[in-house]
Parts: sequence; C-alpha cells; structure tokens
Amino acid sequence: MEHVTVSFSREDNIDAPILIEGLPGIGHVGKLVADHLIDELGGEKIAEIHSLHFPPQVVVDEQGVTHLVNNEIYRCEKDGKAILFLVGDFQSTSPEGHYILTESYLDLAEDLGVRRIYALGGYGVGHLVESPRVLCAVNMEHLKPEVEAAGGSFENAATGGVIVGASGLLLGLGEARGIEGVCLMGETSGYIVDPKSADSLLGVLSGMLGIEVDHTSLQQRAEDMEQAIAAIREAEEAKGREELSYIG
Amino acid sequence: MEHVTVSFSREDNIDAPILIEGLPGIGHVGKLVADHLIDELGGEKIAEIHSLHFPPQVVVDEQGVTHLVNNEIYRCEKDGKAILFLVGDFQSTSPEGHYILTESYLDLAEDLGVRRIYALGGYGVGHLVESPRVLCAVNMEHLKPEVEAAGGSFENAATGGVIVGASGLLLGLGEARGIEGVCLMGETSGYIVDPKSADSLLGVLSGMLGIEVDHTSLQQRAEDMEQAIAAIREAEEAKGREELSYIG
Amino acid sequence: MEHVTVSFSREDNIDAPILIEGLPGIGHVGKLVADHLIDELGGEKIAEIHSLHFPPQVVVDEQGVTHLVNNEIYRCEKDGKAILFLVGDFQSTSPEGHYILTESYLDLAEDLGVRRIYALGGYGVGHLVESPRVLCAVNMEHLKPEVEAAGGSFENAATGGVIVGASGLLLGLGEARGIEGVCLMGETSGYIVDPKSADSLLGVLSGMLGIEVDHTSLQQRAEDMEQAIAAIREAEEAKGREELSYIG
Amino acid sequence: MEHVTVSFSREDNIDAPILIEGLPGIGHVGKLVADHLIDELGGEKIAEIHSLHFPPQVVVDEQGVTHLVNNEIYRCEKDGKAILFLVGDFQSTSPEGHYILTESYLDLAEDLGVRRIYALGGYGVGHLVESPRVLCAVNMEHLKPEVEAAGGSFENAATGGVIVGASGLLLGLGEARGIEGVCLMGETSGYIVDPKSADSLLGVLSGMLGIEVDHTSLQQRAEDMEQAIAAIREAEEAKGREELSYIG
Repeated sequence: MEHVTVSFSREDNIDAPILIEGLPGIGHVGKLVADHLIDELGGEKIAEIHSLHFPPQVVVDEQGVTHLVNNEIYRCEKDGKAILFLVGDFQSTSPEGHYILTESYLDLAEDLGVRRIYALGGYGVGHLVESPRVLCAVNMEHLKPEVEAAGGSFENAATGGVIVGASGLLLGLGEARGIEGVCLMGETSGYIVDPKSADSLLGVLSGMLGIEVDHTSLQQRAEDMEQAIAAIREAEEAKGREELSYIG
Repeated sequence: MEHVTVSFSREDNIDAPILIEGLPGIGHVGKLVADHLIDELGGEKIAEIHSLHFPPQVVVDEQGVTHLVNNEIYRCEKDGKAILFLVGDFQSTSPEGHYILTESYLDLAEDLGVRRIYALGGYGVGHLVESPRVLCAVNMEHLKPEVEAAGGSFENAATGGVIVGASGLLLGLGEARGIEGVCLMGETSGYIVDPKSADSLLGVLSGMLGIEVDHTSLQQRAEDMEQAIAAIREAEEAKGREELSYIG
Repeated sequence: MEHVTVSFSREDNIDAPILIEGLPGIGHVGKLVADHLIDELGGEKIAEIHSLHFPPQVVVDEQGVTHLVNNEIYRCEKDGKAILFLVGDFQSTSPEGHYILTESYLDLAEDLGVRRIYALGGYGVGHLVESPRVLCAVNMEHLKPEVEAAGGSFENAATGGVIVGASGLLLGLGEARGIEGVCLMGETSGYIVDPKSADSLLGVLSGMLGIEVDHTSLQQRAEDMEQAIAAIREAEEAKGREELSYIG
Repeated sequence: MEHVTVSFSREDNIDAPILIEGLPGIGHVGKLVADHLIDELGGEKIAEIHSLHFPPQVVVDEQGVTHLVNNEIYRCEKDGKAILFLVGDFQSTSPEGHYILTESYLDLAEDLGVRRIYALGGYGVGHLVESPRVLCAVNMEHLKPEVEAAGGSFENAATGGVIVGASGLLLGLGEARGIEGVCLMGETSGYIVDPKSADSLLGVLSGMLGIEVDHTSLQQRAEDMEQAIAAIREAEEAKGREELSYIG
C-alpha cells in the first residue's frame, strides 16, 4: 500500500497559484475560515487524500454510510483568481507521518502550480480575547510587509515558539521548494470553537488574497455549530435520563 | 520478512462471493456469530494469515504445542452458496498496520471472487440491553434497503460515529475496490461476552444471507463460555487459598 | 542501514545442529543456564548481532570502554556434539522488531545447519517455589515424549497462555521452516534472580542434550550475582549517606 | 522522502580530522561547550541536516520567520587545525531513528575525513557539584591515556552504565568504521543549565585538541542564558498579573 494516495475526481484546469490549508487545530479557527471560504466561493472538491498515516477508521455519516477518513482538496475561483484548499479532519498518527503527508501535500501543490501557501490556525492564549489579533509567521522574510499591510501581527515572534504538524511543515518543507508560506493564527482561548477569532483571521486573509468575502455566514455557521453541539449535549442528557427511568 | 503472509492449505474451488469478518471486539459479539456459523455450516480452514503487525507471541494450546499468532480464513458451503470467514484473535499493534493488514485481507478477498463483505461486531452502549438491536453501517447507500428488510437498524447513524480497526477499514478500503460492505453491530453493554446480542445479530445476518441456521448451539456456546470463565475464576481463587495455606 | 547486522569473527566449521537461546527474561533463568553452559563447555564467541531494533545506546564497561548493544552467538563442542548459543542482554524495542530480529536469528540458524532450538526462560508464578518444575512447550507435537522423558512438565498447558518475544517467535516462526523448537521454562517467583530454578532447568536440558554438565559453578555463579547485587545496593546506600552529610 | 537529508552550503576544502558533537543533553553542558567553541574559533555553517525522525515542527525566530527543525554542521580552523561541529536542538523521536540519524552523521564524517569524534555531554549526579569532574568513555582502549593526561576521569566506569542517543551511538557505530570516539561528560546536578560544568569540560577538551581557547565568554554566555531565563520567567509572571487584572 502507498503511504499516501491522492485520487482526483477532475483532471483539467485545476492549476492555481494559491493553496489554503485549514486542517483541524486550536479553536477550529483555521477550519472555520477555510470551510467558510469554500462555501462562499462555491468550491468544488477535486481530490481526496487517503493515507495509512491517518487514524485506521471510517466515519459513519447521518445516512449510515461509511467514509474512509481522508483530507480533501477543493478548488474555487473568484475574480479570475483560482485558489486551492486543503481541508479535512485528520493529521498523522505518528511524527514521521507528518513529514510524509506534508511532502505529499507539497508534491500535489507543486504539480498544480501553487506558488504560495496560507496555513490557517488558532493561537491559544488560555483566556478569552475581546479583540483577537491575527498572529503570523512566514517562511521567507520578504513576505512580512505584505502580511503586516493586511493587518497581521508579528508580536508573537518576540517569544519565539514552534508550529507543530501540517501547518508548520508546509512552511518549513515548502521553503526548500521555493514555495512562499504564510501562517495566520487567530488569537483564541483554546477552550471553545471560536468564530470571533475566525472572523478576524478571515479579514487578514481576504485582504492578502485581494478578494472580498461576505462574513455573515461565518458568524452564522459558528453559531449553528455551537447550537448543534448544545443539541447533542441535550440529547445525551435526555438519553441518560431515559435509560435511568428504563433501568429504574 | 513480508508484512503479511497468507498460507493456503487448499488451492482449488475456493471462490466465494461473500466474506464474513468476525475478529475480536466489543462483547465478542462478532466472533461469537462467526464461530457459530463456521460450526453450523461445517467450515473448512483454507488459509492462515501471519503478520509482523500482530503481537510478537505464540499461543500455547492445551497440549503444550505452540502456535504463531494468526488470523484464519474458513470456507463454508450451504444450499450451493459459498461463504468465506475471516476469524482469529488478533488486530494490528499499530495504526499503520491496520491499513496494511486490511489491504491484505482485501487482496485475498478479491482473488477469491468476493463481492460483498459482512463485518460483524458489537456496539457498546454501557448498560444492559433487554432486546438488543442490530445497528448497521454500509459502504454504499444502495445496500440500506436490503439491510433494513432483514431487520437491521440505522438509528445509530443520527449521532454519526466512527468504526475503528479491521471492521471499519474493510468497508472503507473495500469501497475503493467496488466491494460492497455491510457492518452489523449487535447492541451490547460492553462489559460481558454477550450471546443475546450475538443471537440478534445472527438473525439479521442469516436473513441477508438467505440461509437458515440453527441458533441453539450459539446460545449453548455462549453459556459454555460463561461457565468456563467462572470455572477459571474459581480455580484461581482456590489456588489463592492453597498458596495462602502453603505459605502459612 | 540494515535492520539487523550479523558480524562473524570466525567463518569455518561453525555448523551445529542445536541452538540454545538464553536472552534475558523472568528471573534471568534462561540467561543463567546459557551463560553457565558456555562457561562449562568452553564456548567461543563466533558472531555479534547488531540491530536498529535494539535500544539506541552503548554500554560502558568497567574499563570505561563503550560497546554497542548487541546479542551474541557462541559455539561449544562437547563429546563431538556442536552447540550454538544465542545470548545477550537485548530484545526488540518494538513489536515489529521482534519478528524482524527473530527471522534474522532463524536465517543464521538455518545457514549453520540448526535443526532444533531450545528457548530457555523463566515461568513466573508470583510466589517462592521449593522444588521448581521445568514447564515446557514445543512447536511440534512429536517432541513431547522426549521432553517428558528428560523431566520436563506440560502441566502448564492446561491453562494455555502465551510466550512473548524472541523465545515465543523462535518456536512459532521456526516451525514454518521445519526447525524443531522446545521452550523450557524454570518455575520461579519472578522477583529475584533464581539459580535454583536455573539448576532444575539445566537438569532437563542436559538430559535432552545427552551431555553431562557440572552444576557446581552455576550455583556459585548465582550466589556471586546475588552478592554483587547486594554490594551495589550497599554502595548506593553508603553514597546516599555521604551525600546527606555533604549537603548537611 | 529521504530519512535524512544533508544540504551543504559549501562544498570545497571542508575536510577535517575532528568532529565535535554538542547536541542537547543533561545540563546543556555539551551544547554550551560546542557553541562556545564555534563562537571563539569563528565557525562557519557548512551544512544543515533535516530528517523525518526529528520532531514534525518549525521554529519561529524573533523576526517571525520559520525554520524547519534541523541539526547543523559547522567548520572551524585554529592553528592550521580544522574541526567540524555537529550541533542543533534535536534528537530522534523514535529508537530506530537514533540509529538511522547517527549512521548519517557518520557517513558525513567519513566523507569529510573525520578520524576522531568527541561526543560532549553532561553526567547527572542529582546534587550540586563544587568542582565538577569530567567523566569519560572511549570506544577504543588505546585512547584512555590521552584522555587521562588531559584531566579526564574514568572513575564512573566502575559502576558501568549506558550512554543513550546520538552521543552513545557515535562511539558505538563509529567504532565499526574505525573512527576513534571519546565521550566527555561534565559532572552536573541535572537541574540547571550548568556553565561551571561546561567550563571544566572545555578545559579537558581544549587540552586534547591542543588548542588554547578563551573561557571568559563561556562563563559570560552561561550567565546571559541564566539571565534570559530569569527575564522570561519575570515576563510570564507580569503577564499573569496583567491577565488577572484584565479578567478582574
């Protein structure tokens, strides 16, 4: 079995200079922004990525149909600009797997003409944040002015730090291939799914992309997500009570 | 050393359209059903599967003879229908190994003409169940009516969830090969070996297979197993008392 | 780097029909017996085995000279009978590595004409044993009478069980190559280095080998080992007191 | 992806007979000495080593620029003597990776003409040490007189012990290639970054290298490091107070 398999559902006219990564992370900030953009820009799924470095499981959807865990590539077009998205719910189960998966992501990106990658994520600070900043890192110094002009901050750099997993390695391994990398991290408590942080991040990102995106549905989407979580909790509690009365 | 080795003890006339997987899992539900069917249908062992992804050990049988840990393929025939079984006591020791082993199971299945896989298991609910349902998942949506007609339920789908290990991957990786996959999970507490749940599961499975199977010995087998466990416990306690008196 | 490297210091006239494995295990029983036999029979080291599946470290000897961790092959000759020994202090650091290492041991054994392997170990019972039995397992049923004639017992078989690591896999993987395997396990508490158990084991083993071996030095060796351990403990305690007074 | 990648930024006139390893370890003793020597001797970075056996992350520098984790090779020249340094912040994430990385280090060393390796580290004793000794191990016995003449001690050898990771394997795997290996370990408590221990170690090492090195800046560097750590702690406490008042 191959370490990583990429299955394209479309082969033509995929080329795009930009890849946006929004895999899961702190506060689901990156994922919220990427999913929002795909919705707003009418993204089309063009590839699925499977790997033996993902968890060995299938996900059962609401119809009872199983899906092998995978990450996905979407393609959007806006004002003549083509953008790819790397989204999904999975990271590697081992340290080595992170390297192997990220090299595959970069192989794919290079093949499709990507020259810049935006890695989106959250920056956990451990407390609620009134006006979340967008803290940043770049893999080439010449990218800094552009990031700052769009409202990104490098204030975090003073204390150094590391970026772990796919986001970090896309910048680190991308640099060796000459692919520009910008990591945008919305300041967030780290305790909850954080639409406010995602909203800030979207502002900086759309500025850098030079496209206008409606923010309304992101706020709405985040609220929906919070309500869905609340509903699941309530259902579990109700089930607990039911079982209690059943046993009783 | 190969990652996985399959040794056939019979080479001819093995072909069968159906594979039933009953590896160990919650409440031993899947294993109980598969072992029962092999007994009832007079199954013949046709292959042993060894792998460096299994635990590094041998099992000592009641004669003092060692057996390298392995899973096994049995073949049964009933009313002109040939059925294969994947049974044994082992799953992979690593996440990557689950993928590698399952691909081997599927290679073998494809070679033998398998077009549908039934993955059997338990569905732990954490409390005793009076009338255990058989909760289900499929890897292709068109399989649902058939499952429901046989008494399987998709009520679990509402809350999503994942299926981990060989059962899940047989459906997930099988789909990519065009092999139909049905996962049948007997509702069970998860605390005990659960023949009642296995009995429910056998009902749905035999309905889907279109064969009639006597249930008596399954119930008996489960009771034997419970008595054996009780006997072992008693022996251990007796031994404990003996040692106490020996030391004293 | 190769997974396993075998470096021979002697190439000629190595062939031997018997391999005795005495790697570390419960109560150091197997290791005590193997080391004793090598001493008594005047064994010669003929090969070192290195592997990236061993712990990544060197051992510093009493001269301050480092030695890469390794297992070793010795060769003895007694009454015209040639015997190989697999000894050392290391097992694999991963489950897969156990399989890979054992296949290497068996490759080596086959190359040198080995037709039977004795895997030596302890059988932990959790309490002191007055007259330790030698509990046994074989990888081919026809070996049982010979083992029983030499005083080995199969009473443990009644409760089944597993044999983990190199000892188990030498029997399990050896069977597939047609190499006879006998596992001899001296009953032992599991808490201490156990020369009494080793003494029993040596009795059965020398009976099966058809050679006479002096037992005196084994008893002495075990006592030396216990005194050495006691000396180390005393030194540590003295050092503890010294540091205490230093700090005070 | 390759397991290990070495990227040279300079190809000519690199040859050197000596390699000094100062990767992270107890009390940062080895790292302090290696970094000091590179500073004092005006070292030039000639290669970067990347590996999927390093942690999967990038480090963000004070400019907000990311750097893929790596170890580095520096080259210095003093009194016509060329010396290489292996430094950096990373060891392998797995046991097997230690072997694979060290073989790469040795491949590189052999290519550049290295005939002796000094592995630097700390020797944790669990208590503050007034006059830290430099405890030693060698991979060939003929090296001992030279080590002792420079003030190194083999008093630790009496109690044996192991050397884990890159330092140990450079000696162990180096021996098989005929490369001399000396491990110098500064006695240290193990609780703090320990410049006093590094100072002792530098004395022995410069004696063996036959070069004179100013010690002042090592002491200063260590003090700076301690002050930097204190400053970070103070900043964190201040931030804690700030957040407290913010929440309040």
